[in-house]
Amino acid sequence: MGILLTIAYDGTDYCGWQIQKNGVAVQEVVETAVGKALGGDFAMLGASRTDAGVHALGQRAHIITKTPCVVPLNKLPQVINSNLAPDVRILTASAVPDAFHPINDVKSKTYRYRIYNAKHNNPLTRRYAAFMPMPLDAVKMADAAQHFLGEHDFAAYCSTGTNVRSTVREIHAISVRRNGDDIEIDVSGNGFLYNMVRIIAGTLAAVGRGKIDPDAVPAIIAGRDRKKAGKTMPPQGLCLLEIFY
Amino acid sequence: MGILLTIAYDGTDYCGWQIQKNGVAVQEVVETAVGKALGGDFAMLGASRTDAGVHALGQRAHIITKTPCVVPLNKLPQVINSNLAPDVRILTASAVPDAFHPINDVKSKTYRYRIYNAKHNNPLTRRYAAFMPMPLDAVKMADAAQHFLGEHDFAAYCSTGTNVRSTVREIHAISVRRNGDDIEIDVSGNGFLYNMVRIIAGTLAAVGRGKIDPDAVPAIIAGRDRKKAGKTMPPQGLCLLEIFY
Repeated sequence: MGILLTIAYDGTDYCGWQIQKNGVAVQEVVETAVGKALGGDFAMLGASRTDAGVHALGQRAHIITKTPCVVPLNKLPQVINSNLAPDVRILTASAVPDAFHPINDVKSKTYRYRIYNAKHNNPLTRRYAAFMPMPLDAVKMADAAQHFLGEHDFAAYCSTGTNVRSTVREIHAISVRRNGDDIEIDVSGNGFLYNMVRIIAGTLAAVGRGKIDPDAVPAIIAGRDRKKAGKTMPPQGLCLLEIFY
Repeated sequence: MGILLTIAYDGTDYCGWQIQKNGVAVQEVVETAVGKALGGDFAMLGASRTDAGVHALGQRAHIITKTPCVVPLNKLPQVINSNLAPDVRILTASAVPDAFHPINDVKSKTYRYRIYNAKHNNPLTRRYAAFMPMPLDAVKMADAAQHFLGEHDFAAYCSTGTNVRSTVREIHAISVRRNGDDIEIDVSGNGFLYNMVRIIAGTLAAVGRGKIDPDAVPAIIAGRDRKKAGKTMPPQGLCLLEIFY
């Protein structure tokens, strides 16, 4: 049978979602805990490969079991969580049809990038936000953000070393909000290139500092040159909020 | 000269503010970093003894130096911070008169107690909020909270083992707000007994669960019996927000 999990995690102590040689992966600890809960053979595939240090409140993972699940689905998150450290939590488990595919069936994803913008960093948000002490104009950042809306070739917003068929993606919604010293950038789209949200955040941060004019953003996108866009912001500010099917 | 520091810290990995035998104290790491910054003799006294695991965004510490400070006061936080781990930050440093006393001169303090109220805990707030999976009625909690306002003998809201001259304290303001799965209890008062905010939060949580009626709170206060009040809530939900002089 097919089961879809919703997973939240604090990515600070992990090498990312996907199993790698250089550290403990979230996928690894979830697979171990699912194995203990199900007690039988299964295969698991995550919806999104979050990087080292990146967080999630709405990661998804698809499980295919050979035998029906012995645990009622509404109790399954609790049973899996009893085998997980508190920095990873299974939030929901639901049955999905045989034809379901956790990556191909994604309609959209929403990410949040958080910047803590004050003279000194906040010890309570330091694991979950990038720290920028220089003044940032969030109104200018919000203006600039609107240029990312719609379908574009985002080649300028993709870290090198990736091999994708197309760099065209569609952004459905993007917003920049300041709440005191916190700046939150929310981005929804049909798919994201490698480091795309972190480069968008870096471009908006450069706009906020006055280093890039909001009206220069369309030309940066059209130029398809990674070097013209902003820096890749650090991983701890990024959180995968939700995946829609 | 006299210098007043404002200090923020993530209390997770500390045995509290005050130096103790069983772990590293925030006071200890701040004193070491201040010593490196000032380079001379000094004495330091904190305004509030936060417990192990309790956080602060507005702790204060008073420094008396024998010689004038060689670092300009507006640069002092940055210099001290360069000798501190990222879970402790000095936010401000200002000169105070010779007669200033960091404990006796306190006019009021504000604490926040955070509860994460959902079916499963949130990995991103687990270090900074108490987790309660059972439904909590925040409107009832807000009603009950108003009974704490004003001057009362808070003997029922003080952990045993403390030795204070009087258990009378005045609460200036108290509020309970729900924001999604987060419940924030803010309490301001002229002083707080040992564990007082955590016992008030525990009483309000019992009200939220329907175990204590909001109208029963005045009698619990008047009864001066610790056993009739709610449980002492865990330390990670508590944060010292601000101290007013």
